[in-house]
Amino acid sequence: MSVHEQGQQARVAATALATASRSTKDAVLSAMADGLRTRAKEVLAANAEDLAVGRAAGLSEALLDRLALSPARVDAIAAGLRTVANLPDPVGEVVRGGTLPNGLELRQVRVPLGVVGIIYEARPNVTADAAGLCLKAGNAVLLRGSSTAAHSNAAIVTVLRDAIKVVGLPADAVQLVDASTRESVTELMRARGLVDVLIPRGGASLIRTVVENSTVPVIETGVGNCHVYVDQAADLDEAMAIVLNAKVQRPSVCNAAESLLVHRAAADEFLPRMLPALRDNGVTVHGSPPVVAAGAAAGIRIEPATSEDYATEYLSLDLSVAVVDSIDDAITHIRQYGSGHTEAIVTRSQPAARRFVAEVDSAAVIVNASTRFTDGEEFGFGAEIGISTQKLHARGPMGLPELTSTKYVVTGNGHVR
Amino acid sequence: MSVHEQGQQARVAATALATASRSTKDAVLSAMADGLRTRAKEVLAANAEDLAVGRAAGLSEALLDRLALSPARVDAIAAGLRTVANLPDPVGEVVRGGTLPNGLELRQVRVPLGVVGIIYEARPNVTADAAGLCLKAGNAVLLRGSSTAAHSNAAIVTVLRDAIKVVGLPADAVQLVDASTRESVTELMRARGLVDVLIPRGGASLIRTVVENSTVPVIETGVGNCHVYVDQAADLDEAMAIVLNAKVQRPSVCNAAESLLVHRAAADEFLPRMLPALRDNGVTVHGSPPVVAAGAAAGIRIEPATSEDYATEYLSLDLSVAVVDSIDDAITHIRQYGSGHTEAIVTRSQPAARRFVAEVDSAAVIVNASTRFTDGEEFGFGAEIGISTQKLHARGPMGLPELTSTKYVVTGNGHVR
Repeated sequence: MSVHEQGQQARVAATALATASRSTKDAVLSAMADGLRTRAKEVLAANAEDLAVGRAAGLSEALLDRLALSPARVDAIAAGLRTVANLPDPVGEVVRGGTLPNGLELRQVRVPLGVVGIIYEARPNVTADAAGLCLKAGNAVLLRGSSTAAHSNAAIVTVLRDAIKVVGLPADAVQLVDASTRESVTELMRARGLVDVLIPRGGASLIRTVVENSTVPVIETGVGNCHVYVDQAADLDEAMAIVLNAKVQRPSVCNAAESLLVHRAAADEFLPRMLPALRDNGVTVHGSPPVVAAGAAAGIRIEPATSEDYATEYLSLDLSVAVVDSIDDAITHIRQYGSGHTEAIVTRSQPAARRFVAEVDSAAVIVNASTRFTDGEEFGFGAEIGISTQKLHARGPMGLPELTSTKYVVTGNGHVR
Repeated sequence: MSVHEQGQQARVAATALATASRSTKDAVLSAMADGLRTRAKEVLAANAEDLAVGRAAGLSEALLDRLALSPARVDAIAAGLRTVANLPDPVGEVVRGGTLPNGLELRQVRVPLGVVGIIYEARPNVTADAAGLCLKAGNAVLLRGSSTAAHSNAAIVTVLRDAIKVVGLPADAVQLVDASTRESVTELMRARGLVDVLIPRGGASLIRTVVENSTVPVIETGVGNCHVYVDQAADLDEAMAIVLNAKVQRPSVCNAAESLLVHRAAADEFLPRMLPALRDNGVTVHGSPPVVAAGAAAGIRIEPATSEDYATEYLSLDLSVAVVDSIDDAITHIRQYGSGHTEAIVTRSQPAARRFVAEVDSAAVIVNASTRFTDGEEFGFGAEIGISTQKLHARGPMGLPELTSTKYVVTGNGHVR
């Protein structure tokens, strides 16, 4: 079936979903979770096929690990769906309202977006996570996963669709788009009028392709060239702990730090402590000249940093480190190289914190804490569909409300102008 | 100067504007209003040039009227800027916030979008209105008006920029983009990374062009194929008043009604009253067969309606009228032909009102009142930059908050994960 036809069916399903009650939607989510548990063998068998194909094709161990499911991972996916069932339904929430001077009652009410398209890479858990969140917010979803996960995604979607049918909603609320051709991505990007929003989740090049070629509105997600700035007034123990956590706790994710900026007045004391700690944690530092010098003094080899280093989201145990002359220079550096995801300042100075918060234009600006906190679950949203790095519609971690639009409802008794 | 260079200068200006205090921004708006009053002669002289060129080029009287300024119109523009100065500043508003279980303080705060691009047609008042709203929300603005208003827009922008300079903000916060070539529109649409959002204001074809070709995120505005549905349980006096108001009070605007749907059970009583009233108000009706028959019985000639009629935003004293068998058919008709702007139901039935509100997916759904109320000033927003008919970011009339984004501010004391 073409993406266009799938989009048309999704629109029909979306109409039914838009008026489904919370209890119906939660029943679907429960049935999905049950289905994944009772049919885990089907899903794991399909996943084994993907892994065999991937191994034969020479996929890296890291990619195979992201692709691999286990009974425990399937359980975790099911548990995630139950978590979403327990979250409040955003649909119908009155965002603002009141009575106008002429007696008209005005309410702005949350409604589903309609049809959401998700384009994503290897991890098959995204299939169920995204479907669950979209469904809870009353949206139909078109899922375009990776061809490497094609069998796993097909098995998961079969289970999810069966659960929708059992509860009595249209199964076309969740559809898998053909992952065997690039054409299907192009068709999704051109499905304006059928698809209300596209959310690409994956590497920078996938996201750039979608952003530049889509006529469907896009929410840009995830690229995180995150900075930690250690101010001259920083508590250096706090700074050490924050930098290490931001860089090494999970280097492959978008809220990990990729760049450290150190105020010149703190550098002489801080770098001789920080650089060995980074080395001991397996981090390769790409440094500006003063950082290279500090490394040499401590017997640590530092790679000289280039502009490209400062612009790179490593997603690995690499870190660019630069010494800056002032908080202004730190802000300028972030403005030049940052991706607008998350930047943190470590400082005991209230004016410095206030300036950094006011002048750094990122989805999340953090004072005296790790960049790793920019996350829907950490923020208390229960679950997230991604982290937006654009300014329109949603910015930062996106939970259920970000998967909705609003409408105005106006009630009168014969009012005319 | 190229649009690219203008965009770069706008970004620099936007940085200064983002942290400007409300009192500074309001001082600029006051100075702009003062400037327009004291230099009205300059503006009117430039406008006279545009009118002369337009007349020589054979512009229609309607277009010339939209282009024409008068001392009273310049005063009204200045008054509009003062109104915006009196509106609350959306920047800095805490949208939500609280303390997380781990003690991190989380706040979601409104921030400016950055650089806004407006592409618009003849009316020169949009130049000052849009600049004032963007500036109040902390945004720089690139204004691409119509070539027919080039002199007027240049004169207005000169006054506005002088006012910004006097207060001490960067004048490049407001810039006029060359209107003499189509190239400048293309450049604006491709200025991703420099321009944060494009808002096209004008006819359907302008909006479609921008939506389909822009890599900059777009907010679709304004196309309104608005419906009034007269239910079987309608109060017919109320229905008559609402239909007349929605159609004839100001037929050239997007919230005017373009289509009337009448429940079969009400048609026999309603049409013989409604059709003569429409005729008496100069309205040409394009009707379905039962409407043509009702017209014939009353001695009124009705044009037979085609699918194209039902899909048309006339913006004139024309109205398509169809008899429908049920509320379901009315909702289906609206889904097929509507533009998602505003639809109204006239009914005394609570269940019918509830269904219509739940199932009609438009920016505004109105019960027992005229479609003409979908308007930022009517809704109490003080001013509006346009009416969004898309679902992302903003839907319906857009005021100052819709010209902002948000950022998350997270404050800890050394928190790590």
